[in-house]
Amino acid sequence: MISFASDYVAGAHPTVLAKLIETNREPMGGYGDDPYSVSAKEKIKQSFSCPDADVVLLTGGTQTNQVAISTYLQSYEGVIAARTGHISIHEAGAIEYTGHKVLEFDGENGKLPFSAVESYLRAFYADPTREHQVRPGLIYLSFPTEYGTLYSKAELKAFHELCAKYEMKLFLDGARLAYGLSSPQNDVLPDELQSLCDFFTVGGTKIGALCGEAIVYPHHSIPPHMLSQVKQRGALLAKGRLVGVQFDALFTDGLYFEIGRHGIEMAERIKQLFLDRGYKLFMDSPTNQQFIILENKKMEELSKEVDFVWWDFYDETHTVVRFASGWSTDEEAIALLERIL
Amino acid sequence: MISFASDYVAGAHPTVLAKLIETNREPMGGYGDDPYSVSAKEKIKQSFSCPDADVVLLTGGTQTNQVAISTYLQSYEGVIAARTGHISIHEAGAIEYTGHKVLEFDGENGKLPFSAVESYLRAFYADPTREHQVRPGLIYLSFPTEYGTLYSKAELKAFHELCAKYEMKLFLDGARLAYGLSSPQNDVLPDELQSLCDFFTVGGTKIGALCGEAIVYPHHSIPPHMLSQVKQRGALLAKGRLVGVQFDALFTDGLYFEIGRHGIEMAERIKQLFLDRGYKLFMDSPTNQQFIILENKKMEELSKEVDFVWWDFYDETHTVVRFASGWSTDEEAIALLERIL
Amino acid sequence: MISFASDYVAGAHPTVLAKLIETNREPMGGYGDDPYSVSAKEKIKQSFSCPDADVVLLTGGTQTNQVAISTYLQSYEGVIAARTGHISIHEAGAIEYTGHKVLEFDGENGKLPFSAVESYLRAFYADPTREHQVRPGLIYLSFPTEYGTLYSKAELKAFHELCAKYEMKLFLDGARLAYGLSSPQNDVLPDELQSLCDFFTVGGTKIGALCGEAIVYPHHSIPPHMLSQVKQRGALLAKGRLVGVQFDALFTDGLYFEIGRHGIEMAERIKQLFLDRGYKLFMDSPTNQQFIILENKKMEELSKEVDFVWWDFYDETHTVVRFASGWSTDEEAIALLERIL
Amino acid sequence: MISFASDYVAGAHPTVLAKLIETNREPMGGYGDDPYSVSAKEKIKQSFSCPDADVVLLTGGTQTNQVAISTYLQSYEGVIAARTGHISIHEAGAIEYTGHKVLEFDGENGKLPFSAVESYLRAFYADPTREHQVRPGLIYLSFPTEYGTLYSKAELKAFHELCAKYEMKLFLDGARLAYGLSSPQNDVLPDELQSLCDFFTVGGTKIGALCGEAIVYPHHSIPPHMLSQVKQRGALLAKGRLVGVQFDALFTDGLYFEIGRHGIEMAERIKQLFLDRGYKLFMDSPTNQQFIILENKKMEELSKEVDFVWWDFYDETHTVVRFASGWSTDEEAIALLERIL
Repeated sequence: MISFASDYVAGAHPTVLAKLIETNREPMGGYGDDPYSVSAKEKIKQSFSCPDADVVLLTGGTQTNQVAISTYLQSYEGVIAARTGHISIHEAGAIEYTGHKVLEFDGENGKLPFSAVESYLRAFYADPTREHQVRPGLIYLSFPTEYGTLYSKAELKAFHELCAKYEMKLFLDGARLAYGLSSPQNDVLPDELQSLCDFFTVGGTKIGALCGEAIVYPHHSIPPHMLSQVKQRGALLAKGRLVGVQFDALFTDGLYFEIGRHGIEMAERIKQLFLDRGYKLFMDSPTNQQFIILENKKMEELSKEVDFVWWDFYDETHTVVRFASGWSTDEEAIALLERIL
Repeated sequence: MISFASDYVAGAHPTVLAKLIETNREPMGGYGDDPYSVSAKEKIKQSFSCPDADVVLLTGGTQTNQVAISTYLQSYEGVIAARTGHISIHEAGAIEYTGHKVLEFDGENGKLPFSAVESYLRAFYADPTREHQVRPGLIYLSFPTEYGTLYSKAELKAFHELCAKYEMKLFLDGARLAYGLSSPQNDVLPDELQSLCDFFTVGGTKIGALCGEAIVYPHHSIPPHMLSQVKQRGALLAKGRLVGVQFDALFTDGLYFEIGRHGIEMAERIKQLFLDRGYKLFMDSPTNQQFIILENKKMEELSKEVDFVWWDFYDETHTVVRFASGWSTDEEAIALLERIL
Repeated sequence: MISFASDYVAGAHPTVLAKLIETNREPMGGYGDDPYSVSAKEKIKQSFSCPDADVVLLTGGTQTNQVAISTYLQSYEGVIAARTGHISIHEAGAIEYTGHKVLEFDGENGKLPFSAVESYLRAFYADPTREHQVRPGLIYLSFPTEYGTLYSKAELKAFHELCAKYEMKLFLDGARLAYGLSSPQNDVLPDELQSLCDFFTVGGTKIGALCGEAIVYPHHSIPPHMLSQVKQRGALLAKGRLVGVQFDALFTDGLYFEIGRHGIEMAERIKQLFLDRGYKLFMDSPTNQQFIILENKKMEELSKEVDFVWWDFYDETHTVVRFASGWSTDEEAIALLERIL
Repeated sequence: MISFASDYVAGAHPTVLAKLIETNREPMGGYGDDPYSVSAKEKIKQSFSCPDADVVLLTGGTQTNQVAISTYLQSYEGVIAARTGHISIHEAGAIEYTGHKVLEFDGENGKLPFSAVESYLRAFYADPTREHQVRPGLIYLSFPTEYGTLYSKAELKAFHELCAKYEMKLFLDGARLAYGLSSPQNDVLPDELQSLCDFFTVGGTKIGALCGEAIVYPHHSIPPHMLSQVKQRGALLAKGRLVGVQFDALFTDGLYFEIGRHGIEMAERIKQLFLDRGYKLFMDSPTNQQFIILENKKMEELSKEVDFVWWDFYDETHTVVRFASGWSTDEEAIALLERIL
């Protein structure tokens, strides 16, 4: 059955898979000490114009947030996030498991509300009892957010400056980075990311890899003994080549961004199909996840023909569902959707 | 200077101190293995009509919440609390430090909003992705709350039933229990606590002791190997007698409740003094903490004569302050306040 | 360069890779909710004659030990292991990171010394201060050990009975399980594992997979809400298919055990080559890792022709090195070794 | 019954108690913000000739080790200790609970073996796989040890230099510091401690206080936001005065050291009584804990007349027991012992 359930519904992009096949018999060092991991890191650094960056390759998204955040915060610090942020709600408490509080703020359409955060920080530093509270050490933004929305360059800059002002760091979760950067609504260039935040991740799993996420520290701010810290958190792959080879393929000849553009193009067509037929969007997402309000009966009908996912309750008779696109979303899928909507 | 800064502003109630003096030279076993700890536990069980209860004696409030919650929850569970709850905001992340998320809800006047919690629980169990979320394992209520407010017997019962329905437990933080039970607004009897929640704490520090908190498990639900767990969390006192003797004194001849009544009586007079002179309350607290809105200049003036604490910003020219009463608040203090207001 | 550096030096076994290629475009549910993960679990259960078992699929070895142990132990419990055990020394403190002590015992050739453990347990339960100590909750045995050695069926049985006697569980780390089971020295049948321990792991990474480890709970003793616990520890793969498909291939037509037998056969030939030429073994390993004492100059010479790894200092002029075999060790590799030794 | 069971068998030294009584009604700030805590810290700094030190006041010994070590180590670091060290065996895993490994070494008479530690460190830094291991960040020495033994000045200096060489810090656990400093065998002056280690603790509980331990950081190396970190670990006392007042008394007019001398004098007389009557020492302790081998029948007899504690099994018919002295050990106690031995 054709599936719009998520952007991790298919295996690896053919070019990524080909590279895995091609390199399969080569003996290589373990734990990231292989030529493809080295080369992948180089290519990521070039792609984001931060030649001096440190790059860490990991396997999964929650793991990557957990490693990135817990290695960065001091034990008495927490991380600010939108209440709908992945780390707030959909990681089974992975951040708290490492001892840190997620300081949650109600936002809109998945975005962290700047002014509420600013007010909180001002109040925090004016509060004589602040040492009895968790010190905010990081701001976490998903780019794009869990609702597919984006922060503008100006918004990122404002958050970054806020961080500098209050001795915090800005962390961008780029699990779906390519889709964010390829959105027509986006005004952030890949080159600019390194100056707009303190560190960011480059998602592979949802953008053509079988698994693989990278953390990029553009400014020599990689935590000390990072290999050891990754190992300690159970996140070090023996055959690090698995992730290295895939990222090497993704960052050769711009494949990563090409997948991003393809995903966005397909998502726009999905959205348009729903709009053309009078469906209502739950919100207007500019990236590869589309949130649609379906009448419950219609939802049942559609679910017999294509896969998509339940997102939230809407009202007694309607449900919010998500249709996502990815590297494997093709003309056939769009045609089917066109036929059945 | 006379102080209304908190209910932990003076040392021990004279009767408590006398007992410490009287028993000082007696050699006793360590780690709670002394006759006064045993006797204190017995008296607490009698006072709250739960003869079969297990009682654990600890030193401080944050420590007690941390021990009580972290020994009760499974690693994948979190605790529901009001956003203004002590564990949410004023324990420097002590719960998260043990790996557990505090699931926060916006309430009013310090109280956890029943219907919001109920809606959340209903939605949680209907959500197919709930295994990606933190499972709610406990509800935490402060009695009285950090704003001095109380839950009625009916409200506690409703929360307790909600817990039963969703396989959770109800934990009552009684750091100021005596003041809550002694409030004219309160309709909960000491006898009834054991049937209204799954376990609760009996605060000593704010009610006449130098230090000391008790956790009461009325229904044989004390976590296994509790001594070891307390030790592991750094909370086991070598001279356990220090807390045992004090609780023994507090629960002899009803002293604990007498201190509660005294605190409430003094708080009512403080409140009345402010009201009589036209000051505005930030909120109408029925217990021993009174929250008053002071014009900033007035605040400065008063602070030269008596001690009280900054509570929150109110507006450009006003501040919320707290005046608290305790065992040591006496006629002289009230008279001074009467004179200077 | 031909490599004997480890058993994770090459990519996937061709049959495993073929299955990844074949299934690559199929859309599947995430997080293990795919037909290949389901089928892989079934096949693992059949292969180890525990049809009622629960099976959890994970990515890496340290991760798997961390998840298996931390979800099993109570917070006040620790795990008994040989001082040379992987969890004791080569996981960067991953077990302690989750809050649990590794109770280490000096053994011989990587094996946990039964009588020392037995004495300790007897003394522990006779010690009146034992609640001030970490309670032993698990015994951890690697099968084979980090030095390639094996426990006999009788030894496993003795440890298992010891566990039962002292209310502990026995956990077998099978990161190299196939090599252990295929050793000529081994007397344990795959069918018997389920009755010789409480749970065990089935390593994939070192036995033909790109990544992948399975925990097998033969007797309905899987920790509650395991998916959530795996997620919380950052160990849940979005594309769970990656591990599912590989294990499905490994447990089809006995491939897993075939790789084991091949590895052992190659290791025996490597050992014989060294012995024939008068080299000294550091110890006589019956499995796929061979530990040889090399004169330092010889070590340098050899390292120009083949890859192997430094294992330990021996004396001023000698070093212990490891030669390991795996699915990719072939006649060509053996021939080269024959030529250069 | 007269008790030699431990050095925490009685309440507070009369002078300490008197100070608690005298200050009881004074209103004071909470959480250590009181004049007695301030004054106590000053006096401690003077007593140990480190006027620029930072001092942290806490409640109990395990708590203090847990706070001191967990706030000092990086997440990937562990602490080196003797296998018989308090943190290794008698704190119920409190260090591991905070995520850190205790790297244990077999010593003699409670002392950490210098040359074994040195060899380990040399090997660790030569080992290419060291990033897969826990990095040693601290050395923990008890002064005196759990067996009453002492490190000489030269030994401390050697450990301190070893720490400097390998970028570690030296931490001295002084739970029984006064007894160590007062021993005739001791050659370390209070003035010298600050230059012989990086930080140390000053025990109160076992030296005349009801509770109270101090951590002294002589060289501005107090961890950042320490109040917050103490709070987060449940170790911040609301009525910090309780510990402040007691330490203020202990460090007025040399009382702390006087108690130390008294304890040592009494211990020497206890030891002599046993020796005179032909009993055998388990080991020759120069401080306030004496370890004696008793024939089991004799042990039972004595236990009817005085309290002491079981320490360890010796052989079929003998047991090692501990007799400890403290501030409350007096002529009457010695006379009784003389009569019944």
